[in-house]
Amino acid sequence: MLNIAIIGAGRIGQVHAKTVASHPGARLVLVCDPVGDAAQNLATQYGARSCQEAEEVFADAEVDAVVVGSPTPLHIPHLLAAAKAGKAVLCEKPIALDMADVKAAQAELDAITTPVMFGFNRRFDPSFAAVHAAVQDGHIGALEQLTIISRDPAAPPVEYIKVSGGIFRDMTIHDFDMARFFLGEITQVHAVGQNLDPAIKATGDFDAAVVTLKAASGAVATIINNRHCASGYDQRLEASGSAGALFAENIRATTVRLSNAQVTDAQEPYLDFFLERYADAYRLELSAFIESVEQGRPTPTTTADAIAALALAEAATESARTGQPVQLD
Amino acid sequence: MLNIAIIGAGRIGQVHAKTVASHPGARLVLVCDPVGDAAQNLATQYGARSCQEAEEVFADAEVDAVVVGSPTPLHIPHLLAAAKAGKAVLCEKPIALDMADVKAAQAELDAITTPVMFGFNRRFDPSFAAVHAAVQDGHIGALEQLTIISRDPAAPPVEYIKVSGGIFRDMTIHDFDMARFFLGEITQVHAVGQNLDPAIKATGDFDAAVVTLKAASGAVATIINNRHCASGYDQRLEASGSAGALFAENIRATTVRLSNAQVTDAQEPYLDFFLERYADAYRLELSAFIESVEQGRPTPTTTADAIAALALAEAATESARTGQPVQLD
Amino acid sequence: MLNIAIIGAGRIGQVHAKTVASHPGARLVLVCDPVGDAAQNLATQYGARSCQEAEEVFADAEVDAVVVGSPTPLHIPHLLAAAKAGKAVLCEKPIALDMADVKAAQAELDAITTPVMFGFNRRFDPSFAAVHAAVQDGHIGALEQLTIISRDPAAPPVEYIKVSGGIFRDMTIHDFDMARFFLGEITQVHAVGQNLDPAIKATGDFDAAVVTLKAASGAVATIINNRHCASGYDQRLEASGSAGALFAENIRATTVRLSNAQVTDAQEPYLDFFLERYADAYRLELSAFIESVEQGRPTPTTTADAIAALALAEAATESARTGQPVQLD
Amino acid sequence: MLNIAIIGAGRIGQVHAKTVASHPGARLVLVCDPVGDAAQNLATQYGARSCQEAEEVFADAEVDAVVVGSPTPLHIPHLLAAAKAGKAVLCEKPIALDMADVKAAQAELDAITTPVMFGFNRRFDPSFAAVHAAVQDGHIGALEQLTIISRDPAAPPVEYIKVSGGIFRDMTIHDFDMARFFLGEITQVHAVGQNLDPAIKATGDFDAAVVTLKAASGAVATIINNRHCASGYDQRLEASGSAGALFAENIRATTVRLSNAQVTDAQEPYLDFFLERYADAYRLELSAFIESVEQGRPTPTTTADAIAALALAEAATESARTGQPVQLD
Repeated sequence: MLNIAIIGAGRIGQVHAKTVASHPGARLVLVCDPVGDAAQNLATQYGARSCQEAEEVFADAEVDAVVVGSPTPLHIPHLLAAAKAGKAVLCEKPIALDMADVKAAQAELDAITTPVMFGFNRRFDPSFAAVHAAVQDGHIGALEQLTIISRDPAAPPVEYIKVSGGIFRDMTIHDFDMARFFLGEITQVHAVGQNLDPAIKATGDFDAAVVTLKAASGAVATIINNRHCASGYDQRLEASGSAGALFAENIRATTVRLSNAQVTDAQEPYLDFFLERYADAYRLELSAFIESVEQGRPTPTTTADAIAALALAEAATESARTGQPVQLD
Repeated sequence: MLNIAIIGAGRIGQVHAKTVASHPGARLVLVCDPVGDAAQNLATQYGARSCQEAEEVFADAEVDAVVVGSPTPLHIPHLLAAAKAGKAVLCEKPIALDMADVKAAQAELDAITTPVMFGFNRRFDPSFAAVHAAVQDGHIGALEQLTIISRDPAAPPVEYIKVSGGIFRDMTIHDFDMARFFLGEITQVHAVGQNLDPAIKATGDFDAAVVTLKAASGAVATIINNRHCASGYDQRLEASGSAGALFAENIRATTVRLSNAQVTDAQEPYLDFFLERYADAYRLELSAFIESVEQGRPTPTTTADAIAALALAEAATESARTGQPVQLD
Repeated sequence: MLNIAIIGAGRIGQVHAKTVASHPGARLVLVCDPVGDAAQNLATQYGARSCQEAEEVFADAEVDAVVVGSPTPLHIPHLLAAAKAGKAVLCEKPIALDMADVKAAQAELDAITTPVMFGFNRRFDPSFAAVHAAVQDGHIGALEQLTIISRDPAAPPVEYIKVSGGIFRDMTIHDFDMARFFLGEITQVHAVGQNLDPAIKATGDFDAAVVTLKAASGAVATIINNRHCASGYDQRLEASGSAGALFAENIRATTVRLSNAQVTDAQEPYLDFFLERYADAYRLELSAFIESVEQGRPTPTTTADAIAALALAEAATESARTGQPVQLD
Repeated sequence: MLNIAIIGAGRIGQVHAKTVASHPGARLVLVCDPVGDAAQNLATQYGARSCQEAEEVFADAEVDAVVVGSPTPLHIPHLLAAAKAGKAVLCEKPIALDMADVKAAQAELDAITTPVMFGFNRRFDPSFAAVHAAVQDGHIGALEQLTIISRDPAAPPVEYIKVSGGIFRDMTIHDFDMARFFLGEITQVHAVGQNLDPAIKATGDFDAAVVTLKAASGAVATIINNRHCASGYDQRLEASGSAGALFAENIRATTVRLSNAQVTDAQEPYLDFFLERYADAYRLELSAFIESVEQGRPTPTTTADAIAALALAEAATESARTGQPVQLD
């Protein structure tokens, strides 16, 4: 049984609180958020304590592990402080908004000895994980082309977008990690940004994009993103290899199909939103974290993974702005 | 190249005319229909000759084979006359409206030496045929349960229904043949008739039915019929065996799927009606007929098959009326 | 928060123990089973107390509600005793093996004043429930034909079958309830039993069946059962109406599809077995039970429903044995 | 009735011969091929005349229209000669291997007054055409992202590849036309070439590629190509818009699905190869050509379309070689 504290009572903090509270191997003991009574409200819901200062979390002897769900600029400070206090850490993505911040903290990050895992939850989605396992087991031969479709049901508020670090760091970061999960080392990034919504364009950000990634293996990944999708949260993946192909499809709440004079076999909209769509993934991510901590095994998504995904996001940002592909070291 | 005449320029005659005219191994030479200029109109469309008297067909030296698409009470007379004239015959189903008519002609039917085939076109549908072949090849082990869903898009005119011989002879006859195709000898029939449309009820006929057939093998077939179906021509089949199951699904004109805020993966209505849905089946049925005639091989659907299907239709009619199951010899 | 005891630590008791233990509105306080340490083992798993005598359950002041998962012949005695002790009861199906037992207890059953609900969990399956709601809302017009496919992955041990009351009471009972859920009053039952496995035949029971039910409304339901299915737990439902049709499909653990030179879009076997396939249904069934108890509302599946399903099972048993349809009052 | 000659009795010439011969509005009168008895063999199959010199085609008074299926370097010469002889022309893609050849002939091409159409058959595929029509009709709002998956079952012989003009001119040319069909003017091309097969790499060509196209409208198209695909001829298209999405799926010969202990709902491999997969498209393309010729209406795929597709192929070739995106005028 792992005693877990959560820093950040916002949208993602609430997801983690629910996941931790209902996990048979975890106990939610403390929720921290500096804003108003956010921490208290969330903590009360699950019978946990609350606080407003992150330092209280790090100093709390009952806390074994910390889920860092604070705003991105605080990820590295909170991660480092928690680790220094001897806590295991499950940190949200991206690791930072700027690679310079990572580099400035690199020595400290390298010195961490407690378990650290990053919240690339989609690796734990049962369907994506099954595709990955089948590829690893050689069921489609050599992987040649990976296609990731990832569209949100609707764009977040413009205020959020302004501080999000841009679509590639905020949204595509999951897909970059997925591409690395399947393809390993990426050597070149090309991104085309789209401006469909003038309000988002006014922030200087894109709201849709197509990214092409060349892997050292010779395989190519294509990521197709959009901040909105009329049919719901569109999350698909297709791995095509020399001997076959694997597809992970969208998920609906039921299997019901309707046929009438207008349509046949019509299904309901895709599960909205990430809490519902990736509920299993968050639960399995937490299980993997607990298992790593309790059994002293390496975490499945490391700080190095988080840094690599951020590097891809930065390269895509540059490519979409300049129009030129970006080579990675 | 087989020179073919068609008797009957109605709905099914038109289907055959089109199929014969476009078949590389057949030539439509003569169309016969006593009603007005029906024969002439159809013949002109395909560059064939026309006549109004069936006797002219039987006497025509150019005619190698006759497709009998006349009203059901004329099937046996036309079949016998054509055979006596030395023509090969492809006869529509059912063989007769009444088993007494069959018995009265049994000796003459038995004496036929020219090739005779019956129009159970669905045996030649590529999907149903593929399921049948896979069952025969043992892909699902021993066949245990067969389910046939067969619904027309809309009921024919009441005037047609009145002379149709009833739903079991007119519509289910295809499904009875399909059940025999898969299961062989049937030993018991139970039918439940439904009256959904008062206008059809007024004719004394049912417009929907569920029929259960026990086979000598121990397998059971279920046939679900309806004279109308909002989504189009609903034609499916499911074979379930000891080691697996096979499904033949509905067919649409395109593969297009639509997703939006109301539906996802919605497809278009099923192909309407039998001409479109079974276009391939009619073509392959004709190929099988030509092949049998030209190579002197037994036809795949025989007079015995036609009689057996009619016997099932009569048994179902009786069962639906009395409520009791009917044993077959 | 409802304090719940479970009587019976067998297969279904284990399902309920897990469901109760993980339900936010319920607490598993007591597990009872007379056999060896079965109760203790199950109770320990969820931090509950255990006992071997049902009387201890009824006398336990902490217990608000009892889940009756004992062998079928004990359902009525346990149900009555629990109710007399003032406990709410969630009782497993069937209510009894013999309608005579129901009639003998009818007066006592009628006198119960505590909430009683029967475990027809499939009514709570999200997909079946969504189809039912759509039918009720008129999305397919008048319901005309209902088809229920229900096949278990593998037959239970012959020892279980011998005391099960037969396939119609033990397995089809769920489908009878589903037919009543959709069609209301049933007026006629016809059943064809099949003997595919000689070992089950030797017990005098069938291991597959096709049942046809006529409803007072004129609609017809077809139930297709099999004690084994190579592809897993085959649980489907199809409602066809005057204006459209609705389908509830099988469920798999992931959405993954595989294409290669042999197959395309191949999916994994269906979820096995009822615990996995109906996990949501058991959870929602429990929620409905808790809600009824706590809000003093009628339970959604009543003793009358349980008796009606048993009556259908008895009628089907008779029909399959005699070959004749059975009229219901 | 249009009298048609075919130049080129190779793979594509054979496709056209079959399509013309079985089209109710066309007559195959002449087949021309300089190599051995290729023309004669093909002509005999359909009861047409044959010749070895293209000049004989142009001089033939019976010939109304010419299908140009000669090697690509001869497309422009044959197109011009046929047009000068007053024949309507249906010319295969690409128009040339090199834009310089187009420019050299531009004045002559511009001067043509007979109907000229280019063989972008996929525009006539019923599924792609239905998606296009639905997009035009506003069914998915503004088109934002188009994804084209186009994989051949197996690479052609290396000898063919050497003279093919490269993957972008030979294979992607269809997809470039499809992108233009949906998106109109393209302003930027970025291509990543892949070398999966060393034998093809040795020819200096790629055997797989991912191409990103920016349209003037702000929409983006992604083309994913591969010279081989284990599951068959993988031909899909997905149009995603502000209000919904449309998908055109792969096609199989039957609708059969198989379920057993290993797989569920497994379908057969996709239709191989273009003759089967696009049989309807070739037929409808020919109908459109005949209709344009006979009714004096503009052809649906013009020389300008052919030149624009070639320009995209050249841009993609350059981009894949240099790694840089290429701007179009």
